[in-house]
Amino acid sequence: MINIAVLGYGTVGSGVVKVIDINGEVIARNTGQEVNVKYILDLRDFPGDPFEYKIVRDFETVINDPEIKVMCEVIGGVGKAYEFTRRALEKGISVCTSNKELVAKHGAELLALARENNCSYLFEASVGGGIPIIRPIMEALTAERIESVSGILNGTTNYILTKMEREGADFAEVLKEAQAKGYAENNPAADIEGYDPCRKIAILSSLMMGKNVDSEKIYTEGITKVTAADFAYAKEAGYTIKLLGQSKAQGDEVLAMVAPFMISKDHPLAMVNDVFNGIFVTGNTVGDTMYYGRGAGKLPTASAVVADVIECAKNVGQTIPCFWDQEQVALADISQVEWKYFLRAKASAKADVEAAFPGGRVIAVEGCEDEFGYITEAIVEKDFAEKYEALSDSILSRIRLA
Amino acid sequence: MINIAVLGYGTVGSGVVKVIDINGEVIARNTGQEVNVKYILDLRDFPGDPFEYKIVRDFETVINDPEIKVMCEVIGGVGKAYEFTRRALEKGISVCTSNKELVAKHGAELLALARENNCSYLFEASVGGGIPIIRPIMEALTAERIESVSGILNGTTNYILTKMEREGADFAEVLKEAQAKGYAENNPAADIEGYDPCRKIAILSSLMMGKNVDSEKIYTEGITKVTAADFAYAKEAGYTIKLLGQSKAQGDEVLAMVAPFMISKDHPLAMVNDVFNGIFVTGNTVGDTMYYGRGAGKLPTASAVVADVIECAKNVGQTIPCFWDQEQVALADISQVEWKYFLRAKASAKADVEAAFPGGRVIAVEGCEDEFGYITEAIVEKDFAEKYEALSDSILSRIRLA
Repeated sequence: MINIAVLGYGTVGSGVVKVIDINGEVIARNTGQEVNVKYILDLRDFPGDPFEYKIVRDFETVINDPEIKVMCEVIGGVGKAYEFTRRALEKGISVCTSNKELVAKHGAELLALARENNCSYLFEASVGGGIPIIRPIMEALTAERIESVSGILNGTTNYILTKMEREGADFAEVLKEAQAKGYAENNPAADIEGYDPCRKIAILSSLMMGKNVDSEKIYTEGITKVTAADFAYAKEAGYTIKLLGQSKAQGDEVLAMVAPFMISKDHPLAMVNDVFNGIFVTGNTVGDTMYYGRGAGKLPTASAVVADVIECAKNVGQTIPCFWDQEQVALADISQVEWKYFLRAKASAKADVEAAFPGGRVIAVEGCEDEFGYITEAIVEKDFAEKYEALSDSILSRIRLA
Repeated sequence: MINIAVLGYGTVGSGVVKVIDINGEVIARNTGQEVNVKYILDLRDFPGDPFEYKIVRDFETVINDPEIKVMCEVIGGVGKAYEFTRRALEKGISVCTSNKELVAKHGAELLALARENNCSYLFEASVGGGIPIIRPIMEALTAERIESVSGILNGTTNYILTKMEREGADFAEVLKEAQAKGYAENNPAADIEGYDPCRKIAILSSLMMGKNVDSEKIYTEGITKVTAADFAYAKEAGYTIKLLGQSKAQGDEVLAMVAPFMISKDHPLAMVNDVFNGIFVTGNTVGDTMYYGRGAGKLPTASAVVADVIECAKNVGQTIPCFWDQEQVALADISQVEWKYFLRAKASAKADVEAAFPGGRVIAVEGCEDEFGYITEAIVEKDFAEKYEALSDSILSRIRLA
């Protein structure tokens, strides 16, 4: 039997306890031993909870119990979570987490600490919820030089965009509904401004490069400016709009960004709807691979945490290797990248737009005669920005094409 | 440095040598040691090949060299491949393979042999080519009770069906073209009759159940009867047609089959086109996950074999666990399963079809006035078969709906 502690009894924490409870038999088979949740650390009361008797309030109880071999850090944030993780790893206790903020910010440092203390720091659940993505990158694609990673990394925004597309509704309206249903937080900035997918693409980029990619340096644009009208034009042109995290190895640099993109309806990511996530990983010999599943949610995320617990249980006393050094990777300058752009502009500016971006394609949508859609030829971001600036009074939207 | 031997210098074998050659540096980083191909076993001559000097003709040279720790069996078939694999495992040499025929037929036995001799038998490349699918099932989803596995498991037939859909072409015509391009074999039965995906679903089913699922007992139907007309009706009704391998745990039994299915254009598998494969794995807490990538091809398949080699290199002297016992799983009776069916029938039989399958939906396609399409309500396979039998002179096609 292996004893573990769950730090934080919120959504994911209670999911971890539940997954271990309902799948105990399968886990025992796969681990060769039973996994026992000895402590649940939380400051709150949970009267009537079936696992109430396991709840402790003091981290010292947990850290000083030599029976504890693995901790699940599902507190979130970079305060107590960071402190507890460091203290556990320093004592040789492995830590499994879903905390993307902490992994993005201190992942390389915590991995080094785990190596020094012959234990492991695992974070499968920090990207893509229940989708196995960290492990395939680390193991199954281990014979590969990974060239790029991109995808739909945030379930809340994908839910909002899917609903906007299907119902022709505007952003604010759908956000309100998503908040009412609990799919979006009361303070939704982390999702809708793209901070959450930014942390995730930073983690994936770091694994791809084997070195640290600073999430704070990644160009990040959310979905707040995407409109129902944009979707109408996208549909007319055979596209949809998705919030993508993208990362591409360019020699020693990495080109990483988060932004809404128009993608062809034929692209496999166009099928990734609602709260689902889909992540493309391209290797130099395997080509494109994609991983799809529920990117969030109590049980899917908890399932990924528990898979990591099992991995730690099988490797007590040793470090599961993860190549993510503390050395910083330089970020490539996105102003030098070439894209096609979708523009929506006032009808009165049609001649100006066509002159500024020659060779593009006009898209007309019925009932929108006072404006028009336009897809430019490929143009360097910097050149586009200059021309866009000059026309900004007439341009209503601009979205890159992936 | 770890020395390996590649048995068979055909498409996959030469791919393995190439992947190790071009990704040597990444592999050394991930393995902590260099992987060296010491021997390539093949009876043929390869004059001028850059690795000609590594080619040996006698298996005894390979098996008697104590430096060889891992063999890649990429010969195919169940003759020499089986013999060499047994002899290697008996000597404690790990074996990695892409040979689905051998894995489906003798997987459980070879895994047991590996366990007895403290080595490993790995077969990531046997299903889904370069897509990591065996490892996610074995590891990342290890906290899960896997409830079902289904997907597009054969690249050749998916290429043919995609072309039929896009070009409105008939099966025989597209097959000929695929053969000319080398996408289909001269003897295409293994693909078009569904034997290849049958072996793959047997392997996946065995891993899901932890026991042996006999591929020869799996109901298997190929794509030879699918017509251009079927695609026209499918399109009209918002569907496409895919050859699916399906497997579902039902208590101690497994419901497994391979057949063409109509699937909604909104289903993520509808996006899996050309030679790509897509595999859905549903777990009791994680829900649906999907894995997508090139299901065949020299380098993608080789990449998966090399990933297994790396895993073996990291675990010399021990067995990488795989729960697939030799005990046989009973197959559920598919005649008791309920599906909706698509029918294409002569216009003269419309009243009879509607009477036999009440409550269905008629689909009309322009230019096909002498026939009609029909989607029945859900009906048990056995009941359907009886009614179908009575109407068989008038029914031109019948395809299940997934």
